[in-house]
Amino acid sequence: MSKEITSRQEDYAQWYNDLVIKGGLADYSAVRGCMVIKPYGFALWENMRDQLDRMFKDTGHENAYFPLFIPKSFFSREAAHVEGFAKECAVVTHYRLKNNPDGEGIVVDPEAKLEEELIIRPTSETIIWNTYKTWIQSYRDLPLLINQWANVVRWEMRTRLFLRTAEFLWQEGHTAHATAEEAIAETRQMLQVYADFVEEYMAVPVIRGVKTESERFAGAIDTYCIEALMQDGKALQTGTSHFLGQNFARAFDVKFSDQNNQLDYVWATSWGVSTRLVGALVMAHSDDEGLVLPPKIAPLQVVIVPIYKGNEKKELLDEKGAAIAKQLKAAGIRVKFDNKDNARPGWKFAEYEKKGVPIRLALGLRDLEQQTVELARRDTRGKTTVAMEGLTQTISGLLDTIQQNLYNRALVYRDTHITRADVWDEFEKLLDEKGGFISAHWDGTAATEEAIKEKTKASIRCIPLNNPLEDGKCILTGKPSKQRVLFARAY
Amino acid sequence: MSKEITSRQEDYAQWYNDLVIKGGLADYSAVRGCMVIKPYGFALWENMRDQLDRMFKDTGHENAYFPLFIPKSFFSREAAHVEGFAKECAVVTHYRLKNNPDGEGIVVDPEAKLEEELIIRPTSETIIWNTYKTWIQSYRDLPLLINQWANVVRWEMRTRLFLRTAEFLWQEGHTAHATAEEAIAETRQMLQVYADFVEEYMAVPVIRGVKTESERFAGAIDTYCIEALMQDGKALQTGTSHFLGQNFARAFDVKFSDQNNQLDYVWATSWGVSTRLVGALVMAHSDDEGLVLPPKIAPLQVVIVPIYKGNEKKELLDEKGAAIAKQLKAAGIRVKFDNKDNARPGWKFAEYEKKGVPIRLALGLRDLEQQTVELARRDTRGKTTVAMEGLTQTISGLLDTIQQNLYNRALVYRDTHITRADVWDEFEKLLDEKGGFISAHWDGTAATEEAIKEKTKASIRCIPLNNPLEDGKCILTGKPSKQRVLFARAY
Repeated sequence: MSKEITSRQEDYAQWYNDLVIKGGLADYSAVRGCMVIKPYGFALWENMRDQLDRMFKDTGHENAYFPLFIPKSFFSREAAHVEGFAKECAVVTHYRLKNNPDGEGIVVDPEAKLEEELIIRPTSETIIWNTYKTWIQSYRDLPLLINQWANVVRWEMRTRLFLRTAEFLWQEGHTAHATAEEAIAETRQMLQVYADFVEEYMAVPVIRGVKTESERFAGAIDTYCIEALMQDGKALQTGTSHFLGQNFARAFDVKFSDQNNQLDYVWATSWGVSTRLVGALVMAHSDDEGLVLPPKIAPLQVVIVPIYKGNEKKELLDEKGAAIAKQLKAAGIRVKFDNKDNARPGWKFAEYEKKGVPIRLALGLRDLEQQTVELARRDTRGKTTVAMEGLTQTISGLLDTIQQNLYNRALVYRDTHITRADVWDEFEKLLDEKGGFISAHWDGTAATEEAIKEKTKASIRCIPLNNPLEDGKCILTGKPSKQRVLFARAY
Repeated sequence: MSKEITSRQEDYAQWYNDLVIKGGLADYSAVRGCMVIKPYGFALWENMRDQLDRMFKDTGHENAYFPLFIPKSFFSREAAHVEGFAKECAVVTHYRLKNNPDGEGIVVDPEAKLEEELIIRPTSETIIWNTYKTWIQSYRDLPLLINQWANVVRWEMRTRLFLRTAEFLWQEGHTAHATAEEAIAETRQMLQVYADFVEEYMAVPVIRGVKTESERFAGAIDTYCIEALMQDGKALQTGTSHFLGQNFARAFDVKFSDQNNQLDYVWATSWGVSTRLVGALVMAHSDDEGLVLPPKIAPLQVVIVPIYKGNEKKELLDEKGAAIAKQLKAAGIRVKFDNKDNARPGWKFAEYEKKGVPIRLALGLRDLEQQTVELARRDTRGKTTVAMEGLTQTISGLLDTIQQNLYNRALVYRDTHITRADVWDEFEKLLDEKGGFISAHWDGTAATEEAIKEKTKASIRCIPLNNPLEDGKCILTGKPSKQRVLFARAY
């Protein structure tokens, strides 16, 4: 076990932090609640972002960029929206600093006060719909399928690297449609894009569902979500897609004339995923030795470490190592040949384990003789000796196997952690002792949902899509219920 | 001439604005000085960004992300830096809104005042060097070659779309080195990367040079720059690369131990280009009909417009148009087949001219018979009929030709607008009547530089790299000078 990393058993939260910081993903910053995403972590995010971006473009979306600032008055336009976001906003009130007339340093210049305060966007529905007003007149301007990659700020009181930070990076899709049906179809399509991405690329199985009214996005008619399960049995919402109805169109007076020249408000959706996904990825697969990254998005897929004995035949090892790296790179594999001589092989092994590189090749003198190389898998930590011949194919195939294995492992864990509960004591016991999702009946009221949350800290994560109907009794109140919903404690 | 677009002759500034807005690149926003980058403009920026990103990575740089906020006190640490940036900052003073106790709407919650104000980054040297302090201990940690793509805010009083906006998108490289020589080499390397990008991809010739002391970045020892010339004879700085010496290392106490275990401050560089490049691109090549975009970065390289006569053989035209598009796409060409029937061909022609699409193909019934297509070049506005056979090769070759032609045209314009002046009257006359760069002697003092600026609004754009030495007399004061420098009025 790595000495640098706290074990999951000992302290799960500390384990997570150790992985993020010592795995080189991120660091704390001098600004409360804001993190620095380090090069290794950013390369991971780039791989995720670029794949998502391709999927958005393949489904007809274009990128654009809207202002960081939102005039304060825009916030009040949509009643539910302001309730949801006003409490955690960074507010710009001034636009100039000056030398401190009373001494050292600089102070805010009181003369440079803004007439109307500007809010740093916590999400961009308001500024975007205010813009759409000028872009949409007719059904010919619809649908408008736009995405934005941006930083947003929510002034959270308790923050955790990647999972909850004051500033974070995300994408927010904002689409406009002529009919409710089309907007709902878009909302569901983007949920499916998210689910496909998280399952296929991050190797994290998710449950697709819809939120209860009290868990909805502020201003939405319906919030669809995907929910993943972490190794400590807590759920993590990994993406949301909102059907906004005509709420924002009404708030910003965005109407279009249809084919019959009738005016109507435009129908809207919005959907987003954020750097929080990195946190989900870390917690879904990693172990007590460090990160375990899925090959499809790992910044490095293969690392090659030469095993020198003094300087004996160092050149031969360097030559062979570089040749293997070149060959793998030509096959599109992200590979690094680490022949830096400022660290011993053992230290490098631990370092790349900590960083979650899927495959490690160790190349020694005997390997040169025998035309082999030692291969270690990060996911199973198994080692084998493989032939140099056909190495590229071996590794290509193994990267696929590892990707699949990570997904399968997470799926088994997830599926064995969806448990039915039909009586209250069992419900509480399951939450405390086993964790995971509890499938239970609920009477459909916000009051019961809230009461359960207060008693157990578990919330309704979602009502799964295509949920089977089944007569039952609410786990808390015993009132009649038509379907089970998924409860869990969550991040 | 397009009726929608003001001609350059009539009003150059309005021409520029018309191109940006009617060409679909950007739009004004509800927030003073901030713009919305529209999908077409953002696709252009993405092409520029992605190419630059590849060039940064090819030269060994990695991306990372640092906080949007900078604690106010960080600013005062580097004396020149605070002078340069304090006057145009957006300042966050509060972190919560609440319902207005006296009536409608929401107000800033006075209870939620930050202990220390946060500045929205106008540039990130301070927050980054504060972070580097914890990342750098030894020469083994150097060089640190990091780039960040980010939004920054400078509260400019007079703004213009792309050229000068309160918020803009950019990249900022921040590197740390063990020696001054290495840092200077990095500064120059990145200037060369910028010059290569602007010339090869944007088809805009640039002059590489170094700024005078008074035009330097706040906190730099030397500022290198590339300067381009716009069609109105004004210069535009398109990129800067700064050698920061040990200034920021000293301000943030970043030391490293060298191979002999001696402690020294780290040497720094920073370098950046921004969405301002889009403005330069627009002004360098466009004409009175609209945008003219260089093929290498144009969002669309080819548009195919079918010429229907009623519905006669519409299907055949659609089939052929789609087939050509597919074939071009397979060759990696960015192509659109616009067979929407909500606009006439003439309207579409004007639209794609306005948007600067390099090649337009018009496909009519006669073309089907004769196995030809009508091809129009945006740069020369020339039309020819070309054979369907070998069309992909024809177009591939022509895209290269157009790219080269745009560069050559801009180069001829630029080179014929570098004029020597040896007497003051001539200097003033050239500025007023011809514009462009004036190559003249200068006595090397900030006072003279300032006096010339006040008299003529022309500034010293740069002292070109490898500038020939030549004895002469200052254009204003007649004092002795060893070399000519380049003056111009500038954006």
